[in-house]
Amino acid sequence: MTMIELIEKKKHGQSLTDEEINFIIKGYTEGLIPDYQVSAWLMAIYFQNMDEEEVFSLTKAMLYSGETVDLTKIKGVKCDKHSTGGVGDKTSLVVAPLASALGVKMAKMSGRGLGHTGGTLDKLEAIPNFKIEKDIEDFYEQVNKIGLAIIGQSKNIAPADKLLYALRDVTGTVDAIALIASSIMSKKLASGADNIVLDVKVGSGAFMKDVDEARKLASLMVKIGNYYHKKTVATLTDMSQPLGCAVGNALEVKEAIETLKGHGPDDFTKLCIELTVEILQVCEITSSYEEAYKLVKSAIDQGLGLEKLRAMIKYQNGNPLVIDDYSLLNIAQNTIDVIYEGQEKLYIKSVDALLIGEAAMKLGAGRVTKDDAIDLGVGIVLNKKVGDIVAPGESLAKIYTNGQNTNLAKEMVYSAYTLTKDVVTKMPIIIETIK
Amino acid sequence: MTMIELIEKKKHGQSLTDEEINFIIKGYTEGLIPDYQVSAWLMAIYFQNMDEEEVFSLTKAMLYSGETVDLTKIKGVKCDKHSTGGVGDKTSLVVAPLASALGVKMAKMSGRGLGHTGGTLDKLEAIPNFKIEKDIEDFYEQVNKIGLAIIGQSKNIAPADKLLYALRDVTGTVDAIALIASSIMSKKLASGADNIVLDVKVGSGAFMKDVDEARKLASLMVKIGNYYHKKTVATLTDMSQPLGCAVGNALEVKEAIETLKGHGPDDFTKLCIELTVEILQVCEITSSYEEAYKLVKSAIDQGLGLEKLRAMIKYQNGNPLVIDDYSLLNIAQNTIDVIYEGQEKLYIKSVDALLIGEAAMKLGAGRVTKDDAIDLGVGIVLNKKVGDIVAPGESLAKIYTNGQNTNLAKEMVYSAYTLTKDVVTKMPIIIETIK
Repeated sequence: MTMIELIEKKKHGQSLTDEEINFIIKGYTEGLIPDYQVSAWLMAIYFQNMDEEEVFSLTKAMLYSGETVDLTKIKGVKCDKHSTGGVGDKTSLVVAPLASALGVKMAKMSGRGLGHTGGTLDKLEAIPNFKIEKDIEDFYEQVNKIGLAIIGQSKNIAPADKLLYALRDVTGTVDAIALIASSIMSKKLASGADNIVLDVKVGSGAFMKDVDEARKLASLMVKIGNYYHKKTVATLTDMSQPLGCAVGNALEVKEAIETLKGHGPDDFTKLCIELTVEILQVCEITSSYEEAYKLVKSAIDQGLGLEKLRAMIKYQNGNPLVIDDYSLLNIAQNTIDVIYEGQEKLYIKSVDALLIGEAAMKLGAGRVTKDDAIDLGVGIVLNKKVGDIVAPGESLAKIYTNGQNTNLAKEMVYSAYTLTKDVVTKMPIIIETIK
Repeated sequence: MTMIELIEKKKHGQSLTDEEINFIIKGYTEGLIPDYQVSAWLMAIYFQNMDEEEVFSLTKAMLYSGETVDLTKIKGVKCDKHSTGGVGDKTSLVVAPLASALGVKMAKMSGRGLGHTGGTLDKLEAIPNFKIEKDIEDFYEQVNKIGLAIIGQSKNIAPADKLLYALRDVTGTVDAIALIASSIMSKKLASGADNIVLDVKVGSGAFMKDVDEARKLASLMVKIGNYYHKKTVATLTDMSQPLGCAVGNALEVKEAIETLKGHGPDDFTKLCIELTVEILQVCEITSSYEEAYKLVKSAIDQGLGLEKLRAMIKYQNGNPLVIDDYSLLNIAQNTIDVIYEGQEKLYIKSVDALLIGEAAMKLGAGRVTKDDAIDLGVGIVLNKKVGDIVAPGESLAKIYTNGQNTNLAKEMVYSAYTLTKDVVTKMPIIIETIK
């Protein structure tokens, strides 16, 4: 077996065997197969695709390329929740506390974000002294005690995926469904949860721009999870406009806390409830959607999720007072409103999520390369979202800045808005759920 | 402009501009663009193809990546002849002398062969003391004096093509028509002849296995040549069985000399005449096919080609006595016949050219990597070709060996033959000509 033969085989549309895929992933990880052969193979996969068996094999090969996490030391049913990422996505900060408040063990390992704004870890670090690094035994103990922990993913989780992703990123081979699905699922499976709930974002601010493609991705990830005996559910959710109102790390933490208090933005609250409902069902806390829905609503109303978040912050060395005193979050003090300059009342037709995300990045909220520092205090809060009416002189959004690219960000935010005279119906946040 | 954008552009089936293709070829040649991006781009080209404008640009970018040869110091009309390569292909040794005998300046630069048997240079080196390296001024002088020279190609001809070819070879991206055509034509155009006659081989012993694909390649090469103001003609010729009877360097020189004496195998003689006729027409020695045909026939009959070959050998320091004394060619002394072991007379249905070529390589006649030494004296002479009858105990072929892999080669040659009870019609050697 040579790599050239395997490239040719895929190029001609044939399926590779489990053994052949292992040969490639092992050889590449060990430095025996050079980048230039792997990139040609990846491009052939882009054009010829992989069948399900191949995707299962690729996922497995990457999953076993490094450490796997054994969560058996944690009692109860363990669930992982993963989002494909978007602008203003602070969902884990709400869903994980809610689900743990309702009896699910949420032992979550997260990565850092690249682009737009930070990832969940960056957001948590906007809480003073919050520690995202934890010894694995301490992690088990915390989840056993309070049912909830969000820590940084070990560098040794699926190292083959890291190598492959870095290569895909510079060779135009990121957007192949088989490669995306196996990349995400190799890391999720290595993290050891019993069940997996996936939030697949669709729209301008998401990686998947198109519902059909997102559906294919979601469906393939569900198949991978189920094949490896993890109950897996995926929900397709809208990312054509930013999720909720806040975009930027500390601002998003504040919005997440507000949501756990029952004061969150409509779309974001709906999404958090839906995902928590999925978790309760997949973890068999209840089989009834209505029952699950009621449980989640009352967990919000009674502040149970909020108390779980507080407990987690305490357990991970953070300052739990942030929950009642947002000034501790160090949100940027300088604000500037993006004012609607038109002459007539209009409806918001769209808010380009990607452009809002890029504006936040210009302010310093995101990173371009993994070594960039990010400013956790800056960001944007939308005052108007799709379907809202805006009157002359009203603020479309507020920018929180420490002085970096403020005017540029303001222009970007302004141009992210498209207005219309016609009444605009709000898009539902949940598109569909794939089990 | 970044390489990632250009990979994406090609991946999505868009055409690259002249400037973009230059950026890639220049960047790669200068080491600014890494192998892994170029190989992904090449695989995208395999799937999305290139349009003619792109192929013209790629050819030009490779052609100007190194030295170009200026043949204006040679008086008269200069023609180059190129074969895509096959088993037993010693055509240049016959066609170049014949065409020069009839007034065309044949200033030919050749490469060495990889696989099967050697290239034209290796074959010429079977002539004792023949020098294939020559100062460019001496090369001009020789062609001006005797109308004919075959020397080694400068290492600096189209270096971008060399780099790209080496990468294609290990990334499964050799067999893209656009890449093959631009690779061949960049070298031909850099070699400076006025007119180009291409011999595109089709069949098991050739790179192109299929007539339709070969026709596409031939047609594209003709377009490239004409676009760059070189009159270009391509002839599709059969390579399903070896060309002529001799396979192996010294053996092929002997067969070429025999052919110039008028005693060559039918198929090989026909091909040499046809290609020389094409050269005479494209160089406007005569516009009439019949007239050209008569000229070539009489050049053979009168030994004019033979005398040109003798003059070239003399001019390039070789021993011209080989023309009359084949023992000077150091053909291997040990021979072994491959005997037909069946019980009844049968027709030869096919002789697998690739397998015969590989058998010759096992004997030592070819090289796998460019640094391998080759044994110029070994090889195979076919006694039976397609359409011939073979009787029990007759020899199908004779193996000339210096002891390396003799039995293996014998078995390979035997299994290259397929026999049948039915009468077999001989395949025409010339399939079609594309102008």
